[in-house]
Amino acid sequence: MSNQQYLQTLGQQAKTASFQLANLSSQQKSALLHCISEQLTLNTDAILSANAKDVAAAKQNGLTDAMIDRLLLDKPRLAGIIADIDNVINLADPVGSESASQLLDNGLRLTQRRVPLGVVGVIYEARPNVTVDIAVLALKTGNAVILRGGKETLTSNQVLSDVIRQALRIQGLPEDAVQLINSTDRELVTGLLTLDQYVDMIIPRGGQTLQRLCAEKASIPVILGGIGICHLYLDKMADLSRSAEVIINAKVQRPTVCNALDTLLIHEAIAAEYLPRLFEEMAALGVSFYTCDKTKALVDSPAFELHSATDESYSTEWLSLTLGVKVVSNIDDAIEHIRKHSSGHSEAILSDDIHATTHFLNEVDSAAVYVNASTRFTDGSQFGLGAEVAVSTQKLHARGPMALDALTTYKWLATGDYTARK
Amino acid sequence: MSNQQYLQTLGQQAKTASFQLANLSSQQKSALLHCISEQLTLNTDAILSANAKDVAAAKQNGLTDAMIDRLLLDKPRLAGIIADIDNVINLADPVGSESASQLLDNGLRLTQRRVPLGVVGVIYEARPNVTVDIAVLALKTGNAVILRGGKETLTSNQVLSDVIRQALRIQGLPEDAVQLINSTDRELVTGLLTLDQYVDMIIPRGGQTLQRLCAEKASIPVILGGIGICHLYLDKMADLSRSAEVIINAKVQRPTVCNALDTLLIHEAIAAEYLPRLFEEMAALGVSFYTCDKTKALVDSPAFELHSATDESYSTEWLSLTLGVKVVSNIDDAIEHIRKHSSGHSEAILSDDIHATTHFLNEVDSAAVYVNASTRFTDGSQFGLGAEVAVSTQKLHARGPMALDALTTYKWLATGDYTARK
Repeated sequence: MSNQQYLQTLGQQAKTASFQLANLSSQQKSALLHCISEQLTLNTDAILSANAKDVAAAKQNGLTDAMIDRLLLDKPRLAGIIADIDNVINLADPVGSESASQLLDNGLRLTQRRVPLGVVGVIYEARPNVTVDIAVLALKTGNAVILRGGKETLTSNQVLSDVIRQALRIQGLPEDAVQLINSTDRELVTGLLTLDQYVDMIIPRGGQTLQRLCAEKASIPVILGGIGICHLYLDKMADLSRSAEVIINAKVQRPTVCNALDTLLIHEAIAAEYLPRLFEEMAALGVSFYTCDKTKALVDSPAFELHSATDESYSTEWLSLTLGVKVVSNIDDAIEHIRKHSSGHSEAILSDDIHATTHFLNEVDSAAVYVNASTRFTDGSQFGLGAEVAVSTQKLHARGPMALDALTTYKWLATGDYTARK
Repeated sequence: MSNQQYLQTLGQQAKTASFQLANLSSQQKSALLHCISEQLTLNTDAILSANAKDVAAAKQNGLTDAMIDRLLLDKPRLAGIIADIDNVINLADPVGSESASQLLDNGLRLTQRRVPLGVVGVIYEARPNVTVDIAVLALKTGNAVILRGGKETLTSNQVLSDVIRQALRIQGLPEDAVQLINSTDRELVTGLLTLDQYVDMIIPRGGQTLQRLCAEKASIPVILGGIGICHLYLDKMADLSRSAEVIINAKVQRPTVCNALDTLLIHEAIAAEYLPRLFEEMAALGVSFYTCDKTKALVDSPAFELHSATDESYSTEWLSLTLGVKVVSNIDDAIEHIRKHSSGHSEAILSDDIHATTHFLNEVDSAAVYVNASTRFTDGSQFGLGAEVAVSTQKLHARGPMALDALTTYKWLATGDYTARK
């Protein structure tokens, strides 16, 4: 079977399964999720031993410790993944609700019913937890999924998806509601991206290269996201006694995630007073800096790891204890810098001046804009959404943290009485 | 200037203009739309004489009468276009409203504010009315637009966009909020589709070839739509005395539009009784037929123009007085046929049996699903939406008739008190 035939088969099977899932009641979907949770628990040993093979291979292939840590499953981690299923079970099911019902002038009664998208394709890296997370979120909303995980976790993903398919069978539901692409051939990724006859949405969960590949090659709507080049503007009217905690939180608390701070923009009126002590505090926490010349003149000391910032460094998502720093003449300079370099994820202003904060909220067009808060809050759970499918940095369909709703669409239902259009 | 440089310039200018438009009040946008309406009236002669050149060239190039009629502007048509602007002025402006405001457990106050998309690219055929329609809808919602019209109407479009840009200047707003691609080079279309640095959404208003080009080549989110392969299933429990009016309305009232009926599916229990008289009535109105063998056996008469249906003919959007006809064994056969051949636009069932109508509403997943009504109702104005940007046949962002809302997105605004994440 060619790659093309293989994908066609997966696509057809997923679409057929999706029809059966579309009209399940919330109770039926909860029973399914309970069964998945149960089966994962029962199969803990098989899952961990498959994962051990992936880990052994990763070590042999010289993967970094950080990468190995990401793909590792152990009992507590698997228990955490299973516990998350219970959280999803308890979320409200958006599917089936009807809204905007009205009697039209033409005599039809028109409503919008929320329905599953159908088939969702998910492409992700070597994180086996995503296999379970995304399958559970898709099934909760009545969608079928086609999964393509990182090649380093294929063995783990095979066992995890087999267990989920077994739960589907136990519940009398089509096992092809969850299908894993069972090969690491890269051609299958681009093939999946053009399977528009069967797949309704692609979610790439990975870095810049994957996002660009999907944007350029997909003929299916893609939710781009998860790339955060995040800015914090420290206004001249900021309460400097309280600012360092927020800046440090944004940069240091979890530097490897997309909502971590990448660039600090600081008003020139407070830079000389504030930057030296901020750098001292941050350097002590292991932060290194890419700075503009003005900053450099203010903080030049062998105690700090300083690099010269460039347009390119200001457009870098650091994902590490690195911070870009730039002195700006005013808030509009800061906004202009953000418009040029931001990925549209999260930006913040610290200021006690309501004119400045209002201006910033109005003029900065990113998924999340903060006043006097850390960028680290851009997250489905922090936003009270319950589940996070992805963090979208595009403007269509869903923006910012995407909840269950984003895995659904609506259809218009209209009922007449043998009504013709006039 | 290369095509690439030209598009980069258009993109940058549009993006810059979009920042200025984003925070206009509804009153300011209404004043702009009034000014556009006024300027179009004042420049009627220039517009009509530019259009006359396009019409003369079209005749010389041997375009069909139907195509020439589509690109023709005369005084009443221009007056109609201008009158439509007044309708748009009176619609509610979705931009600026805030919703879902809540105080999060982490101490932040979080709201969603509706904002313009930013820059919208629109690719359309030789219909100069679209130039005005879409510019007005975009400006009403605070968006900048880059327009690429059909080559046969370039002269008309140049004058129309110049008049709109003049209105922008009169109102003290950036004229680059509306830009027309001023060349018919086809490379500029594919170039526009990958201008993702500046353009937030592409709306292709045209046929299958344009839709596929956009789906395959765009790195910007595209709203596919406007292709309707529409079905009507006549159930055995339909009131046959009232069905012909609906079927004929769906096929004959305006056969050239996307919501016109393409295929009639009829339950075998009523086919022998019903089809001969239906064919007689429809043939008298000029309808020809592509039928299955069972149908053919029932209606075989030299009085009808009959062709044998194929998988390909069942997947054709006729846009003419042609109808596919198929006898099915039951409702599930009909649904299976729809799933296989539909473009996801509009489907209808005629039946007095609530089990059949409920089943059809649940199982058919198209933008609009009708019970006892013509497919012809899928339309922004019929649905009470006021304006129609396009009819989406995809499932993300907007589905079916798209109103002003679909030209907007939201951003999350969160305000703390120097709040760090725990």
